[in-house]
Amino acid sequence: MFIENINSPADLKGLGIDELKTLAEEVRAGVLNRVSTHGGHVGPNLGFVEATVALHYVFDSPKDKFIFDVSHQSYPHKMLTGRKEGFLDASLMDRISGYSSPLESPEYDNFEVGHTSTSIALASGLMKARDISKQKYNIVAVIGDGSLSGGEAFEGLDTVAEIGTGIVIVVNDNEMSIAENHGGIYRNLKLLRETGGKAELNFFKALGFEYQYLEDGNDVAKLIEVFKGVKNTKVPVVVHIHTEKGHGYKPATEDKEAWHWNFPFDVKTGNIKNPEKFEGENYNELLGQYLSKKVKEDPKLVVVAAAVPASFGFDKKRRRAAGKQYIDVGIAEEEAVALASGMAKGGAHPVFSTYATFLQRTYDQLAQDLAVNGNPAVINVMGASIYGMNDFTHICFFDIPMLAHIPNLVYLAPTTWEEFEAMENWAIAQEKYSVAIRVPAGKVQHDTTTEYDTDYSDINKYKMVKKGMKIAVIAAGNFYQKGRNLVDALDAKENIQATLINPRYLSGIDEQMLHDLQFSHQVVVTLEDGCLDGGFGERIARYYGPTQVKVLNFGISKQLYDRYDVNKLIEDNNLTDDQIFTEVMRNLV
Amino acid sequence: MFIENINSPADLKGLGIDELKTLAEEVRAGVLNRVSTHGGHVGPNLGFVEATVALHYVFDSPKDKFIFDVSHQSYPHKMLTGRKEGFLDASLMDRISGYSSPLESPEYDNFEVGHTSTSIALASGLMKARDISKQKYNIVAVIGDGSLSGGEAFEGLDTVAEIGTGIVIVVNDNEMSIAENHGGIYRNLKLLRETGGKAELNFFKALGFEYQYLEDGNDVAKLIEVFKGVKNTKVPVVVHIHTEKGHGYKPATEDKEAWHWNFPFDVKTGNIKNPEKFEGENYNELLGQYLSKKVKEDPKLVVVAAAVPASFGFDKKRRRAAGKQYIDVGIAEEEAVALASGMAKGGAHPVFSTYATFLQRTYDQLAQDLAVNGNPAVINVMGASIYGMNDFTHICFFDIPMLAHIPNLVYLAPTTWEEFEAMENWAIAQEKYSVAIRVPAGKVQHDTTTEYDTDYSDINKYKMVKKGMKIAVIAAGNFYQKGRNLVDALDAKENIQATLINPRYLSGIDEQMLHDLQFSHQVVVTLEDGCLDGGFGERIARYYGPTQVKVLNFGISKQLYDRYDVNKLIEDNNLTDDQIFTEVMRNLV
Repeated sequence: MFIENINSPADLKGLGIDELKTLAEEVRAGVLNRVSTHGGHVGPNLGFVEATVALHYVFDSPKDKFIFDVSHQSYPHKMLTGRKEGFLDASLMDRISGYSSPLESPEYDNFEVGHTSTSIALASGLMKARDISKQKYNIVAVIGDGSLSGGEAFEGLDTVAEIGTGIVIVVNDNEMSIAENHGGIYRNLKLLRETGGKAELNFFKALGFEYQYLEDGNDVAKLIEVFKGVKNTKVPVVVHIHTEKGHGYKPATEDKEAWHWNFPFDVKTGNIKNPEKFEGENYNELLGQYLSKKVKEDPKLVVVAAAVPASFGFDKKRRRAAGKQYIDVGIAEEEAVALASGMAKGGAHPVFSTYATFLQRTYDQLAQDLAVNGNPAVINVMGASIYGMNDFTHICFFDIPMLAHIPNLVYLAPTTWEEFEAMENWAIAQEKYSVAIRVPAGKVQHDTTTEYDTDYSDINKYKMVKKGMKIAVIAAGNFYQKGRNLVDALDAKENIQATLINPRYLSGIDEQMLHDLQFSHQVVVTLEDGCLDGGFGERIARYYGPTQVKVLNFGISKQLYDRYDVNKLIEDNNLTDDQIFTEVMRNLV
Repeated sequence: MFIENINSPADLKGLGIDELKTLAEEVRAGVLNRVSTHGGHVGPNLGFVEATVALHYVFDSPKDKFIFDVSHQSYPHKMLTGRKEGFLDASLMDRISGYSSPLESPEYDNFEVGHTSTSIALASGLMKARDISKQKYNIVAVIGDGSLSGGEAFEGLDTVAEIGTGIVIVVNDNEMSIAENHGGIYRNLKLLRETGGKAELNFFKALGFEYQYLEDGNDVAKLIEVFKGVKNTKVPVVVHIHTEKGHGYKPATEDKEAWHWNFPFDVKTGNIKNPEKFEGENYNELLGQYLSKKVKEDPKLVVVAAAVPASFGFDKKRRRAAGKQYIDVGIAEEEAVALASGMAKGGAHPVFSTYATFLQRTYDQLAQDLAVNGNPAVINVMGASIYGMNDFTHICFFDIPMLAHIPNLVYLAPTTWEEFEAMENWAIAQEKYSVAIRVPAGKVQHDTTTEYDTDYSDINKYKMVKKGMKIAVIAAGNFYQKGRNLVDALDAKENIQATLINPRYLSGIDEQMLHDLQFSHQVVVTLEDGCLDGGFGERIARYYGPTQVKVLNFGISKQLYDRYDVNKLIEDNNLTDDQIFTEVMRNLV
C-alpha cells in the first residue's frame, strides 16, 4: 500500500509511473470505501482520481494552489493531502466534509465551495493577488464540463483571459452534468473531443486561451506529461481532459446520473444499504408525479430544470414523457428564471423548480426579469427547511429573507401536500402574479379533510383555522404542525383556547386580521422553518411594535451552519414543542 | 418631416430607402431633443437609430417581438411605435421612461428591462412559448457588446443554441461598454471586426449559431439587406453589426464614456445646462479621491469595478494612475465578487464598488464565494438610498433586506463621510471579516468633530451618541440626521431628553444595549433609508416583541416604485421630520 505513506503531496514525488498508477487504484478504493459507507458524490470523484494524482505529482501544493469547482471531485485531493483517514477509517469519516474546506485543511484547501461554476472566478482573484505582489506560483482551477454552462464560469473565463498571466484551467469533461448536459457549448466540447482538440472552432481559443486536449483523461502517465507541459505557464491555458464519470466502478459508469451522488451502498452489488430508510413518500417524488400529470392535462405547461431534475422527481422516464414540455437549461439558474419569465410572457405556463440554496443565484432575475414584469411564472423552492441538506454550502433555510421582500413576488408556504397542490394549481392557471412556492420539506404531511382554497389571488389573506383568544399562533409552512401542537397543548394543559392561523403568504401580512387580533389577544406567536433575521415573523413583530401585544418569533438564528444534527438544531433554537410551550407560557401575563 | 406620419411601424413600410434615411435623421434629432432637454442615455441610442429603422422596416412588430438589452438603446424604437411625442414635445417627455416598458406600450414593449445581459435569456422564453404553441413569429433580441460579458447573456446564448429554432440576435458592437470593454470575448469581437466576420475562430459559431457580420452598422440600406436575409430564419442567427456609439453627434463620438448618459445639455456646444446644479461635493467623487489616495498608500489595494467606475468616481485619470491596482471585469458582477474573495484570500486588499441595484446579481457570490469563506474583501454599496436612482429597474433601497441577513457578512452604515472613511480604513486593513459598506448617499454629510472609532471588530456594537430616557432613537446611516432632528425636536418642543443611537451595523443587533434600554425607555424608534420589510428596524421590533417597550419602525414600504418624487415618497411614507415627531408623540403614553 502506497497510500499509507502519503501524508502530503511531497510524498508522491519519489514514486514511479507504475507506483503512481497503483496509488491511483488505492485512492479509488478509498473513495469507494467512503462513499459506500457514508454516502456522497461517487461519479465525479471516481473519474478524477488519476488527474488528481497527476496534478499533485506535477505541481507543488500548497505553494501551488488548486481550486475545485463544486469541489465534489476533491476526495482524491483530500486523500493525498493528509486526510486519508477520513476515507479509510469508517470511524473518522464524519470529520471530513464532502467539499473543499479551508476550515478542514487551511494549507491545501483554498475555498469553501459547494455551488457550481465558481472555481475560475475565485482563481482569477488569486491570480491578481499573486501578480500585484510579484509572487510566483501556479494556480490550477478545475472545472467540470457541466459547470461550464453557468454564467459565473463564463465571467471567470472572460476575466482570466484578460488578466492574461499564468493559470491552468483543467476542464474535466466527462460528458455529463448531474444529468445529461444541455447548451450550445456542449456541441463545441463534442467537436473538440471528436477532433482530438484540433477543430478550428474552439470556444476557449475564441476567448483567448491557449488550449491542449487529452483524450485519455484517466491515464496517469499521459496526464503527467500534459501537466508538466503547462506547469509555470505565463499565460492562461485550458487543459481539456476527457474522463469517464465513475471510472473504475461499473455500476457508476453504467448509470451515471444515478451515481452522481448516492446513499451508502454495497460495493459488490451497488445496492443501497438499508433501502427501507428511503422508502415511503417524499415531496420530491410527489412533485414529480404531480408535474407529469399536469404536463398531460395542460399543453401550455413547461417544466423547467436547471441541471437538478431529480430535486423535483423528474426522472428520465418523466422527462422523456414530457417531451417538448420539459426543458433543462443546464447549470444556469439565471437563465432558468429569465426563460420562465419570457415563457410566461409568451403565454406558456412555466414551472421552474430547484433547491433554495441554488436559487440564490437568481435574486436579481427573480426581482427584475420576473417580478418587475409581473409575469405569471411559477418557481418551486425545494428543500427550504431545516430538514433539508445540511452541508455548509447547501443550507436551504435562508430563502425567506431572500425572497419574501422582493416587491411584486408572491411567496406562498403550503402546510401540507394537499395545500401545495391547491396553491400550485392556482399559480399555474392564473395570469397575474409571479409566484414562488415553498414546497414543503421533511416528512410528508397530508390533510385530505381540509378543503383548501382554490383561489389565492386575495394576496396576503391569512387563514384563521381556529378562532380563540389570549394567544394567537401564526404558524407558517413546515412549522404549521408545531403551531397546531402548541395550540393543542395550551388547550390540554392550560385550558387556553388559542387562535391558530395558517398565514399562507410569506411575502406580506394580513393587516386586517392582525388588527383584529389585538383586541382579544395578549401574545402573538410566529413559527417559521427558517432564519429569523429578515424572516416572516419579524414583519409581524413590526406590525405590533406600537401596540401592547407581545410577539414571540420562533425560528432559526442567523449564522453559518455545517452538518448539523437537526434535533440539536431544534433544541438550540428553542424549537421543541415543549420549549415553545414553556416560552409562550412564560410570556403570558 | 416623415416622423410626423409615423404612428406605428406599419407606417414605415411604404417608404423608400432615401426616405428611410431621412427618417433616421429625424429620429436622431428627436433623440437628441429629448436627451438634451430631459437627460438620458445619449450614445447607446444615437448609435442604434439606423438599425432600429431597418428592424422596423423589415420585421412586423408587434407580431414579431423585439427584446432590448438594458433597453437604453430603445428610444428610436419608442419613436417609431407611437411614442414620438415624448421626444418631440418637451411637455410630454416625462410620460416616457428611459427603458422599454410594457406598462407604457403593452403592444410594442415586451419587458420592463433596466439591468444588463438579460435580452437573450428573456427571448429564449418567448422562443419556447412560441414553439410549444406552434405559433410563427420572429423574435429579435438586441444586445450590446458591453453586455456580452455578463453571465446571464452567456447562459441565454447557450440555451438559445440548444433550443435551436428561429431567433435573430443582433449584437450591436460599438466597441464600448459604459467605459471601455474588458474581457477575453472582446478580442474575438475585434478579430471578427478586423476580418469582416470571416475569422475561423468565432465565439458565436462555437456555441452553434449561424453568423453574419455587417461592418456598416449605421447604414440603413445595408442593415435592411442583412435583416431581410435572416427574417423567418428557422435556426438561431447572430447578426453582428459594427456601429458607432453616439453616431451623428460629434461630442458624443469624441468622448464616448462621458456621453453614455448625460444630464440635460446644450446641443450646439455639448455643455451641460445649469452646471451649478451638479457642482459641489458628492459621495462618488469623494470616494474616487479616497480610493486614489489609498491605492498610493497601500500597494496591496486593488480597486475593482464592474463596468461602472464612474459610480465611485474612478475616472480615466484615476484608472490610469492606479495601474495594476485597478481592474474592471466588465459587466460581470458575479465575477467581481468572486474575484474580490479570491484576491482577499491571496493577501490583496480588494475593494469592489457598485450600485446597490446591480449588486443584486451577486447575492449568491456574496453569500457563498465571499461570506462563507470569510475572506476580508470590501464591498462598497453605492446609491443605496431613496436619494439614489429612481427608475423602475434601478431602485437602490432594497439592499438591507438583501444583504443584512447573509450569515457572516458584516454590513456597515456610516452616517457621514468621515465615519465612512473610518469604517473603510478599518475594513481594508482587517483580515477577518467580509465587509459591505453602505456608502452614504444624497447631500454629503460631514462631521469633523466626532472622533469616530478606528476599530469595528467588536461586531454589532452600537454607538450611544446621547444617553437619555423615555424615547430611544436608533437612526441608521443616511437617516441618522433624521434621528438627530427628532431628538432635538423632542428636547425643544417637549423637553424630553431622548436617547440617540448610531447603530453602525445593519447586519445584527447590540443585544446588551437593547437590553439595557428597556428599563428606562417606553418607545424605541428606528429610522432607515430603505425598505422596511426585512429591513433593519424589524430586527429591533423582534427583539422587543416579548417586552413592554413599544417599537416604531420608520422606512419605506415594500412595493415597486418608478420615477418617484423623493419629497412625495418621504411624505407618503410618513418620513418628514414633523410626521415622525407627531407619530412618536402619539405613541408616548
